[in-house]
Amino acid sequence: MTTVKVVCHRHYEDENEWSCGNWLEYTLVIVLATILLLGSLGLTLFWVINYHGGFAWQEDPKKQFNLHPVLMVAGFITFSGFSILLYRICRCCRRIYVKLLHTIFHALAIPCVALGFLAVLDSHNLANPPIANFYSLHSWIGLVTMGLFAIQFVFGFFSFLILLCCEGATAGFRSAMVPIHASFGLTTFMLAIAACVTGLTEKVMFKLGEDYSHWKEEGIVVNVLGAILIAAGILVSFAVRSPTLKGDARLSVTERL
Amino acid sequence: MTTVKVVCHRHYEDENEWSCGNWLEYTLVIVLATILLLGSLGLTLFWVINYHGGFAWQEDPKKQFNLHPVLMVAGFITFSGFSILLYRICRCCRRIYVKLLHTIFHALAIPCVALGFLAVLDSHNLANPPIANFYSLHSWIGLVTMGLFAIQFVFGFFSFLILLCCEGATAGFRSAMVPIHASFGLTTFMLAIAACVTGLTEKVMFKLGEDYSHWKEEGIVVNVLGAILIAAGILVSFAVRSPTLKGDARLSVTERL
Repeated sequence: MTTVKVVCHRHYEDENEWSCGNWLEYTLVIVLATILLLGSLGLTLFWVINYHGGFAWQEDPKKQFNLHPVLMVAGFITFSGFSILLYRICRCCRRIYVKLLHTIFHALAIPCVALGFLAVLDSHNLANPPIANFYSLHSWIGLVTMGLFAIQFVFGFFSFLILLCCEGATAGFRSAMVPIHASFGLTTFMLAIAACVTGLTEKVMFKLGEDYSHWKEEGIVVNVLGAILIAAGILVSFAVRSPTLKGDARLSVTERL
Repeated sequence: MTTVKVVCHRHYEDENEWSCGNWLEYTLVIVLATILLLGSLGLTLFWVINYHGGFAWQEDPKKQFNLHPVLMVAGFITFSGFSILLYRICRCCRRIYVKLLHTIFHALAIPCVALGFLAVLDSHNLANPPIANFYSLHSWIGLVTMGLFAIQFVFGFFSFLILLCCEGATAGFRSAMVPIHASFGLTTFMLAIAACVTGLTEKVMFKLGEDYSHWKEEGIVVNVLGAILIAAGILVSFAVRSPTLKGDARLSVTERL
């Protein structure tokens, strides 16, 4: 209990020391992140409903495919993006609650990613004639992203939650693992964005072909969606590395444990 | 002169303190970076020569296009990648020489990018019928990357080389600009990789279309090239942020000025 009290005390000290510029940066990151992370999901929904006829399950493999971009953006971008950000910038709760929220947001991403993956597999396998799987650059990037995400989740869950049962004995190991988990987490997020922009390019080329160069409305919507996803990637990467949002660097390792 | 001597002295101290693991990490980054940065350029050359008939200038716009991927990968990935890495990990020379090398490598990227840009513009405008420009997600990302690259070069040249003429008076400003220049530099590199993977997807979809799903040899070459580019992005990003390769954190701002 004593340790927690000390950490909280230094937290408040930090907050009192924050200048107007720091608060402006903090607020701007939160507002922009909300716009970009929810905006990307909203625009993906608009795209597939307006230009691809909405959703279905196995009875209509073409429409089942439409679940793939929406669920992948929801899981890998919106939920994961908020999860990374709230872990980094949440300044008002005890560390364990922030950790649990981080885990819950990533856990919410799991069914999205699993169903999104199933949707594209089904839409390929149930098509007439069936379409091959895992042949494209997009699918290779996507597979690596899913693999890294799974490893990160399992590793993070055991290292930073389960190992808390022997808090003292595992502190050294956990503190050594924090930067590794953070680096791989950001890498996974960047890979997810690479998977999104290659996937969008692939889909728009399949659908529009040469017409893409005639500035069709759908082409512009897809480009704007890609731009929003990249902007989200830059913002999350900035927020994770910003020394202001990190708080006091001397405290970061123990605080973030 | 006294300052320089002190910095060199502390450099050697750092080097002596390096453990076997640090040297292993350092050597591994250099070897892997060389393989990935040169490998991506080599594979791009192989791809366009083997599957797209090699190069030409305005007399054959289709073959002129082939200069675009090669020159862009040379400028944005190979030269820029080495430039970022050598600035970060060069431990044997005076800071000013490292700065000059960093500038020279980025300067070498300029003609590559300019000619690569001209090649794609010509190949579109001289085609029969002409093809529109800047309609795709790839071209949007590419334009932003070129803009950021230009701003970074001009800003870096004036801030970290020209302003050295009044070394003492500008030290504060320069040291404040280092993290901003570094962040935008890494962002530019990541955007360049996003431009590459979307460009590769676009090109392979135009060329192979539905055949892409039949595991054609060219499709696999393009996928491997994309994977190498992404691996280069992860490696450069890791090298830039690694505390080991950074050396002593307490010295980093002044040392890296």
